[in-house]
Amino acid sequence: MVPVCKVASAGLLTGALMMAAPLSAQKLEEISRPKGPLSLESTGSFFVGGHAAKQNATEIGLYGDGEITVDQMYVQYLIPQKRSGLPVVMVHGGTLTGKSYETTPDGRMGWYEYFARRGFPSYVVDQVGRARSGFNQAPFNAARAGAANPQSQPNLRRVANDVAWVRFRFGPKAGEAFSDSQFPVAAASEFAKQAVPDLGQSFPAYDPNFSALAALAQQLKGAVLMGHSQAGRYPFEAALLAPSGIRALVAIEPPGCKAAEYSDDQITKLARLPILVVYGDHLETPQSQGVSWLPFFQDCEKFVARVNAAKGNAKMLHTSELGIRGNSHMIMQDRNNLQIADLIIKWIREMTRPAR
Amino acid sequence: MVPVCKVASAGLLTGALMMAAPLSAQKLEEISRPKGPLSLESTGSFFVGGHAAKQNATEIGLYGDGEITVDQMYVQYLIPQKRSGLPVVMVHGGTLTGKSYETTPDGRMGWYEYFARRGFPSYVVDQVGRARSGFNQAPFNAARAGAANPQSQPNLRRVANDVAWVRFRFGPKAGEAFSDSQFPVAAASEFAKQAVPDLGQSFPAYDPNFSALAALAQQLKGAVLMGHSQAGRYPFEAALLAPSGIRALVAIEPPGCKAAEYSDDQITKLARLPILVVYGDHLETPQSQGVSWLPFFQDCEKFVARVNAAKGNAKMLHTSELGIRGNSHMIMQDRNNLQIADLIIKWIREMTRPAR
Repeated sequence: MVPVCKVASAGLLTGALMMAAPLSAQKLEEISRPKGPLSLESTGSFFVGGHAAKQNATEIGLYGDGEITVDQMYVQYLIPQKRSGLPVVMVHGGTLTGKSYETTPDGRMGWYEYFARRGFPSYVVDQVGRARSGFNQAPFNAARAGAANPQSQPNLRRVANDVAWVRFRFGPKAGEAFSDSQFPVAAASEFAKQAVPDLGQSFPAYDPNFSALAALAQQLKGAVLMGHSQAGRYPFEAALLAPSGIRALVAIEPPGCKAAEYSDDQITKLARLPILVVYGDHLETPQSQGVSWLPFFQDCEKFVARVNAAKGNAKMLHTSELGIRGNSHMIMQDRNNLQIADLIIKWIREMTRPAR
Repeated sequence: MVPVCKVASAGLLTGALMMAAPLSAQKLEEISRPKGPLSLESTGSFFVGGHAAKQNATEIGLYGDGEITVDQMYVQYLIPQKRSGLPVVMVHGGTLTGKSYETTPDGRMGWYEYFARRGFPSYVVDQVGRARSGFNQAPFNAARAGAANPQSQPNLRRVANDVAWVRFRFGPKAGEAFSDSQFPVAAASEFAKQAVPDLGQSFPAYDPNFSALAALAQQLKGAVLMGHSQAGRYPFEAALLAPSGIRALVAIEPPGCKAAEYSDDQITKLARLPILVVYGDHLETPQSQGVSWLPFFQDCEKFVARVNAAKGNAKMLHTSELGIRGNSHMIMQDRNNLQIADLIIKWIREMTRPAR
């Protein structure tokens, strides 16, 4: 029996009281300011990838026909004044954006800033087809105008707040937290604001995120690629496509590792790079909810064994096995998120030489 | 006759050569790094606004029915170590995102960072319904499933690259720049990557952006609100809704100022705050393109006169009248963007007392 506790302040996510009331905005005063200053060489943003698409006026939706640009990937960065590590690229998961790695829902420092403070040039992307990377609106506008079957529109996925609570392992049941939960459940309504519609499923077999990440790593001339959840295997896929700029791969809570699906040739290629797979706690979520992370975890264990059998250097980092309890699927936002970051940073430093 | 020059490297936006070729990604090396370090007290992000919406499984698109959160506004910030001014909130225009104020398409510093370097706590938002603020996907998924008429879907607006070239006044004709153009036209293909689908038109008479901006200003306890293009009047609308947190209003190239539409009561309210309206050069774009910014500019001149007649403090900043030539509609990305920022900063300092 998993210990649980009621979370009064999480009531925003549960029940009829919520229906009409607006969510209260996070107060700026609730955001904690780090004690020491952050000294940056620079901060900014740019794009990788992208190509032109010719569309008619209906598809474009404003003024007239012509070309627009699609499949670009937005990238933001913090370059610390004093560097002591390789660039780290962070990719968020499904129905989310790069915000995953910024300030946590309860106002603490995220990994984006923390890695920069620890000396790593820190890069966060918005996946192609989402947030500041935009998406191709043509199929929607064509259907709206009667020029295409609405069924040809991509499905725009989101996840209901109560469903996320259980699937992201804040607790066994919406509104109830595990007694040792590291997720800041009182700020769950702020976490809900991070979600955006996700067209990812609509990409063909070739996902433009893979080539964009590979291109980014090449421009960085040696980078650590880190992916979370739905993007957990993106670092693997980018490395299989073009490994030349990639120095290490980190998969945070991926939906399995395709242990049985990667070919021997693919495993041999992946075995050339250090690989870390990270999972939190409570992987056996209740049967009543029809979801469990355990099979994904077990698949990744098999993947790690297969890579290492091919003379690779892969490792599982299962936080609860280290005695760190209660980590959720949103581990980069958990209350002990910097403790987890330190474990990953330690591994990165061991696996990579210092930056020039 | 307006002087023009051919821009060879802008060919990416024009003609059939473009059709199949991918746009080359901006090289990281092309991004200029500022000479001095940027010393921040903090950087991060949060949300203002937002409320729950109950949706069924079809509308949500993944797993099951329940509540999701909509109408929230994403806000990112840079707080300088040494403050010397009020918080400045920057709102991007139509079909764009907060990226407008970050690194320019040709890799120079944007206003977001520059205002922080000049001592202002700097805030950039993604408009409600776009980018990291997300949007309500329900009408699209309902139409896809046959549960709603596709005509009830919001139109997803973008602007064709060649249309943007003329309407944003890079030059008189796509691929041709004004001889004095300040826009970095060689990087126009990078600018095209900044565009995302825009649902703004779908909002009812009440635009959730107005209340979100007013709430943000209240949390900041005194802020300068700045809006660009489609959002040029958002500062006015936020001030009419709830002026208590707002200290000054800046409208950058708005599509007119509703000079004849605001009531006397509204003008009296707006007259309580200092107001700056900024326009660049080449407002008379060719008749052949069927677009001109001149009527918008003239409408704002009338608005300024009306506010001042009500004992207000409004001013037009028309850069070309100061002898600064060639500024485009994307004035915060023009080659002289920091010169323009300095003019705005000078006005803000004159109009507002130093921060505590």
